[in-house]
Amino acid sequence: MREIGVGLLGLGVVGSEVANVILQRSGRLSEQVGASVTLRKVLVRDLHKVRPYPVPAELLTVNPDDVFNDPQINIVIELVGGEQPALDYIRRAIVSQKHVVTANKEVIAKNGYRLLSLAAQHSVDLRYEASVGSGIPILSPLQQDLAANEIHAIRAIVNGTTNYILTKMAKEGLPYEQALRQAQELGYAEPDPTNDVEGIDAAYKLAILASLAFHTPVRPSSIYREGISHLDPKDFTYARELGYAVKLLAIAKQRGDVLEARVHPALTPLETQLATVDGVYNAVQIEGDLVGTLVFYGRGAGGRPTSSTVVADVLTIARNIAMGGIIRPRMELNRRVAVVPMDDIETRYYFRLSVSDQPGVLAQIARVLGDHRISISAVIQKELDPIAQTAQIVILTHPSVEKSVQAAVAELDSLPLVNKVSALIRVEH
Amino acid sequence: MREIGVGLLGLGVVGSEVANVILQRSGRLSEQVGASVTLRKVLVRDLHKVRPYPVPAELLTVNPDDVFNDPQINIVIELVGGEQPALDYIRRAIVSQKHVVTANKEVIAKNGYRLLSLAAQHSVDLRYEASVGSGIPILSPLQQDLAANEIHAIRAIVNGTTNYILTKMAKEGLPYEQALRQAQELGYAEPDPTNDVEGIDAAYKLAILASLAFHTPVRPSSIYREGISHLDPKDFTYARELGYAVKLLAIAKQRGDVLEARVHPALTPLETQLATVDGVYNAVQIEGDLVGTLVFYGRGAGGRPTSSTVVADVLTIARNIAMGGIIRPRMELNRRVAVVPMDDIETRYYFRLSVSDQPGVLAQIARVLGDHRISISAVIQKELDPIAQTAQIVILTHPSVEKSVQAAVAELDSLPLVNKVSALIRVEH
Repeated sequence: MREIGVGLLGLGVVGSEVANVILQRSGRLSEQVGASVTLRKVLVRDLHKVRPYPVPAELLTVNPDDVFNDPQINIVIELVGGEQPALDYIRRAIVSQKHVVTANKEVIAKNGYRLLSLAAQHSVDLRYEASVGSGIPILSPLQQDLAANEIHAIRAIVNGTTNYILTKMAKEGLPYEQALRQAQELGYAEPDPTNDVEGIDAAYKLAILASLAFHTPVRPSSIYREGISHLDPKDFTYARELGYAVKLLAIAKQRGDVLEARVHPALTPLETQLATVDGVYNAVQIEGDLVGTLVFYGRGAGGRPTSSTVVADVLTIARNIAMGGIIRPRMELNRRVAVVPMDDIETRYYFRLSVSDQPGVLAQIARVLGDHRISISAVIQKELDPIAQTAQIVILTHPSVEKSVQAAVAELDSLPLVNKVSALIRVEH
Repeated sequence: MREIGVGLLGLGVVGSEVANVILQRSGRLSEQVGASVTLRKVLVRDLHKVRPYPVPAELLTVNPDDVFNDPQINIVIELVGGEQPALDYIRRAIVSQKHVVTANKEVIAKNGYRLLSLAAQHSVDLRYEASVGSGIPILSPLQQDLAANEIHAIRAIVNGTTNYILTKMAKEGLPYEQALRQAQELGYAEPDPTNDVEGIDAAYKLAILASLAFHTPVRPSSIYREGISHLDPKDFTYARELGYAVKLLAIAKQRGDVLEARVHPALTPLETQLATVDGVYNAVQIEGDLVGTLVFYGRGAGGRPTSSTVVADVLTIARNIAMGGIIRPRMELNRRVAVVPMDDIETRYYFRLSVSDQPGVLAQIARVLGDHRISISAVIQKELDPIAQTAQIVILTHPSVEKSVQAAVAELDSLPLVNKVSALIRVEH
């Protein structure tokens, strides 16, 4: 049986699980591949750190050269994370004629196109299934099983941290800060949660998904981003009354010759599959012209789910090596499609305004919206406060243009009877 | 660019869509494959039938030899359906050294193992992604993306017809016969609905899923089957009160050294993803030891969704041909695991009994259940009818052994105060 050597970069939470699976299940994995899959070297920062699983000491090294210069290593798994030195490692592996498996969303979102080209040039594969949705198979189905489709839209919950926080806010009425603190205590959120709560992580994942779905490189910097820290539990209650859940959605749509690509909180109809995704789970909904609507649901983070996907990518490459033939990465990014500016998108909106409870206030609001060609689909008045003489007015609009909505918000904010536009959340059907 | 020839057997609902996709999208598909994919022959029964899409007359033939003897046809798509002549066609394609794509669940469920062996022997691929879940990618993720996992359980809604009927019964309180008639009027159910409503179709699909998940050939005849025709809309209401939906589930589980494999109506907790799958949609839930719980959701039938998957299988094979190397079917059915008899399974049960409303009836029932070591988790009494002096008693049990439950039912049925055990539905968590 041919032997296929694997080098692992990084032995953190995911790396430890991956090493453990390859070491413990080598017999079964080899059987599936038709070649033996052997872990040959593991790059670590500290040789003497205590690990959750035993890894033979002779496999550990602190010198990257031991991996890149080993001619018997065919596949390099990059699980260092972050942009550098991970990007350099991946480049070095490729030019050393080694296939690469990575879970690194930041590196792939920012450099995927160039890395895939480099891999094609060196006839090696580059797989990154775990970079989106962790344990959920989504990139491979999108590229392989949906290859005959024109993809119309992707709507996804791809960040478990924010989905956990939003679920807490929705189910228990917790304010954002408190829900975040709970997430941090449980290890679901980092001490500095910026990457998650500002939608940066979700935008990386959307860039990867949208690139594959629409066959064009989509840069993370071209994706509109809005986080969840300004959300108020009130709006979860009102949204539910109107038939919606509030989720941080990553959305990409084909719209004629251009793309929409955006990450923001959104009202999602309660009867949809996405609305029922709670806690740290992720889900990716894909609309294709042949297949209709598909949803892929599962754990979006964690060492074990991620190891499932990373090892699967290793096995796919190993199987291709064992079968002989040309190996090249899947890279059908041959279209050039622009992302439309956020100002030009058209969707429905949820407004909440804190107003003085005086006659004529609704008429004033309706006039401003009308002036901006925003038509109202539903209005509810809430929480009359007889002492302060204020009320909350909630408005759901018909599809309207973002630019007009933003202009209307500015004008509404300056109305004497309107204390504040307290919430503006887009609606996604 | 290398040319890869495709022969199509059958030009019905799915076949027409497949032919149309290959003819209309050839440029894009070829680009993805790195070789040109060309439809060369289409086997039909009637050359002059009017088709939903135009297919060039010179491609049509009524002679199977025109497909099997064409040396330029590399891939044969079998969409004839049913067991024969489909099985013969697939065999003949394989021995003629042609790769095969099929959507035929009956043929694969009954003969998959032998056909895969034959394909391996002739170095051709045999793909059948569309045989389960139609447009939903599930077999390929199961074999490829979850390859590192030990699969613990599959729970699936794989029959759109019955799910449509059950959804109608649940949401509108329709009796079975009426819901079936509506499904027939909409074309969701056949004039003879036996295959769907008796769980035969679901058992074929479960046999295919379980074989791949547990690496052992699972014969459809070894799967316990119970249909939906005896269900009463009452039980949907009571189940909902208890926190459950009623779904026809296909269930396969690893239990030590043996497998459970069964298709029957089941109470499913409302908060699970499966409970929210309504209408003709399908969903497959998979539990793996690394990945945890995954759910794949989408359209389980229809020409266009099925064509999405069939063409994807063709593209995968075409890509492998273009890359060179050995081609062989995925076939890791090297374990031999027995399916346990239904009598030995252990699960929770939902009982509904029509009883005389007299003192002591519940005590009698509880005694019988106790005698059979069935312990009660919840009891509700419903619909007292003061004139007939009858009532409905609904009981939810703790996990109990099927054999004991069946014995208890027989004994309960013979109690003087019990008119009838009107419903017995298993509970699946």
